[in-house]
Amino acid sequence: MSLDAVLTRIDQDLPEATDRLLDLLRIRSISTDPAYQADCVAAAEWLVRDLTDLGFDAGVRPTTGHPMVVARSKGPGRHVLFYGHYDVQPVDPLNLWNRDPFDPAIEDTAKGKVIRGRGASDDKGQLMTFVEACRAWKAVHGSLPGNLTIFFEGEEESGSPSLIPFLIENKEELSAEVALICDTGLFESTSPAIVTMLRGLLGEEVVIKGPNKDLHSGMYGGAAMNPIRVLSRIIAALHDDTGRITVPDFYDGVTELPDAIRAQWQNLAFDHARFLGDVGLSQPAGEQDRTPLEMIWSRPTCEVNGIWGGYTGDGFKTVLPSEAHAKISFRLVGTQDPHKIRDSFRAFVRAMLPPDCEVEFHDHGASPASQMEISDPAFEIARKALTEEWARAASYVGCGGSIPIAGYFKSILGMDSMLLGFGKDDDQIHSPNEKYDLESFHKGIRSWARILSALED
Amino acid sequence: MSLDAVLTRIDQDLPEATDRLLDLLRIRSISTDPAYQADCVAAAEWLVRDLTDLGFDAGVRPTTGHPMVVARSKGPGRHVLFYGHYDVQPVDPLNLWNRDPFDPAIEDTAKGKVIRGRGASDDKGQLMTFVEACRAWKAVHGSLPGNLTIFFEGEEESGSPSLIPFLIENKEELSAEVALICDTGLFESTSPAIVTMLRGLLGEEVVIKGPNKDLHSGMYGGAAMNPIRVLSRIIAALHDDTGRITVPDFYDGVTELPDAIRAQWQNLAFDHARFLGDVGLSQPAGEQDRTPLEMIWSRPTCEVNGIWGGYTGDGFKTVLPSEAHAKISFRLVGTQDPHKIRDSFRAFVRAMLPPDCEVEFHDHGASPASQMEISDPAFEIARKALTEEWARAASYVGCGGSIPIAGYFKSILGMDSMLLGFGKDDDQIHSPNEKYDLESFHKGIRSWARILSALED
Repeated sequence: MSLDAVLTRIDQDLPEATDRLLDLLRIRSISTDPAYQADCVAAAEWLVRDLTDLGFDAGVRPTTGHPMVVARSKGPGRHVLFYGHYDVQPVDPLNLWNRDPFDPAIEDTAKGKVIRGRGASDDKGQLMTFVEACRAWKAVHGSLPGNLTIFFEGEEESGSPSLIPFLIENKEELSAEVALICDTGLFESTSPAIVTMLRGLLGEEVVIKGPNKDLHSGMYGGAAMNPIRVLSRIIAALHDDTGRITVPDFYDGVTELPDAIRAQWQNLAFDHARFLGDVGLSQPAGEQDRTPLEMIWSRPTCEVNGIWGGYTGDGFKTVLPSEAHAKISFRLVGTQDPHKIRDSFRAFVRAMLPPDCEVEFHDHGASPASQMEISDPAFEIARKALTEEWARAASYVGCGGSIPIAGYFKSILGMDSMLLGFGKDDDQIHSPNEKYDLESFHKGIRSWARILSALED
Repeated sequence: MSLDAVLTRIDQDLPEATDRLLDLLRIRSISTDPAYQADCVAAAEWLVRDLTDLGFDAGVRPTTGHPMVVARSKGPGRHVLFYGHYDVQPVDPLNLWNRDPFDPAIEDTAKGKVIRGRGASDDKGQLMTFVEACRAWKAVHGSLPGNLTIFFEGEEESGSPSLIPFLIENKEELSAEVALICDTGLFESTSPAIVTMLRGLLGEEVVIKGPNKDLHSGMYGGAAMNPIRVLSRIIAALHDDTGRITVPDFYDGVTELPDAIRAQWQNLAFDHARFLGDVGLSQPAGEQDRTPLEMIWSRPTCEVNGIWGGYTGDGFKTVLPSEAHAKISFRLVGTQDPHKIRDSFRAFVRAMLPPDCEVEFHDHGASPASQMEISDPAFEIARKALTEEWARAASYVGCGGSIPIAGYFKSILGMDSMLLGFGKDDDQIHSPNEKYDLESFHKGIRSWARILSALED
């Protein structure tokens, strides 16, 4: 009865809820670029003002990096922590956006209304689904639901350097019985899903150094070692001809899927052709004996995320550069140890250096993979609530992306996490023209209202 | 007698000659970047004004690219054409310069006075040595020397796209009996030298295209082909383990050095260790069975001059990019055919493309190698004049850089070229902190006065 009233309130308040999200999207909280530091603070302050207005005991919590937001509402029932992140990805290449990424708007598209702008789906739109569910609850009941802590960070897109110290320092305050993490998507863009398997992430920047200055390739070409050539040889050697990664001991801790999970994934009837076809591809490029779903959920990877060296402007410059750079990341599964893999990768690179070349490494973070325990009753409660809202069976699935927070909640705070969200495959997160379907936002809010209601019962 | 008067005049006028060069160096005539188009025109106009003042019949000659400068002074004797280029290389990375590259100045260094600024050595300082020799001659004799055409281009650093059509259109006007090209250096920074062997140059830009947009490496990593990986594999495959280039038929037309030339080069007592040590290297990186002098003068090369793709900013971005780019150049020798090699290179790249990847090529120019005929008496006249000025025996040598103009003078205008110049190995041409020794400038002017005097006799 009272759930119906909350759902009705959500429907009526949708235009205002959308306006609030657009306000938040206007804040340029790019965490990876130091130029946007003040914008990250502004986003945290915006959220604290809104949560305080709602009745939370909320505060901006400084760190050595971007601040955290913590909000508390004590009440009866199990203590639940909700997590999201207010920081967003960089926006380049800017010329491929159809509008200013920080001047968001509702757009009509062939597939329905979307909220367009950087962070709409990853993760501001998602975290606001929970805030708006709380707002509607308060409007109907006069008080906030259950026993809640809300925790937003501002460094998710930049390796979360302040997260572990913050969790350790505030362990007592942040430890709840279960965590809700809203930073994932609907399965196949249609079916609600709870992620129970997350890949870890290891980031390394490699700088190969050769001559002590840029040289003229006419004067030195042939005689002097070219760092771009060295870097290319190293990158080419990271995979063998079957797509396997060649770093020694890399596959230690990688296990085969249990038959039950493999069967469940087969039942998902994942459309591999459409998954690749949507981005202009037809052939899976990874390990030859794996399905794409395995490749992205349960197999480790090595990718080059960026490379640069020498002259990259218009025209041509016959330079033989003194340095070449690459940003390389590994997605990890099972019990792969990111620190051992970092050491093995660095030894692998050093072993390939020719005479006169040196290498410099920059650590861009490391987190292991996570595997959820789904025995906590909250998992089944949430799965049922999602099934009701979306009128499709909700599933337990894997996730190719890395959401290290779930691992830290387990290892530092001792709690399991439910990862569920409402993003779609075509949301263009991390790309130009990011969007969040208005339907995702609307039904996302309604989903949380149902979950909060079921958790109270 | 009158030569002595000209040399004395050159010595007296050096401060004013240097001031004129600094004026020219202030003009930002970067030919490869369209943003500096007006600056290139300004440099051409500056030169025409100066040559007109000297008594030349001079004009700025428009092309579809940057303009040419042509100046004529008719007189008795053999018709000689002097060539230089007023355009300069880009200046990045700007932060490594010790001063604004276009705010040139005389600096005192441990090795003597230098003229610091972009283009000081390549090639504005060099071309002004000839202009200043003419000025001193005129001051002493009241008229310009001999029977001269001066020809300056503004696209030497950007592949000279307008050069061939201009030479063909103005063939009659520009055809002289011999050409003087001032764009090379002293051998080992000390001995005057005339270059008789020049490498050709082939420039290609390669764009590997994979997914139709930038992807999230968490969502697609492992399943989608990464264009940086494809490009790295191609670059790594361009050389075998012995340093030989693997493009099919690449070595067609590459001949071994004649014994006489090999012996002459051995007599030069080139200091290989110092050549590499000056740039922080110790091991020659090219073909294993060649000396560094062969590597840079008589062997072909393949170099990557620039590479870029994905995220290259601060921090980390887990993107799987849709494109990767490289600028690749080949130095050519003997009778290697640049057009056949371009075709073979493109076929080589296409054959390495995995499914779902495409390649785009951009042509950045092609010129064959040149071999001078030194039977023209002007070669021995110049060699003797240089030997007198520098008090060291002048030699015939090779050059690793590509100065395609010499090939075009031969094939289009039917004349041989004498390539001689006064640059030093540490001039940092194409690099930050380019300089030209004041001694190079001063003795360069005196050298031309001696050569002009000997050619008149």
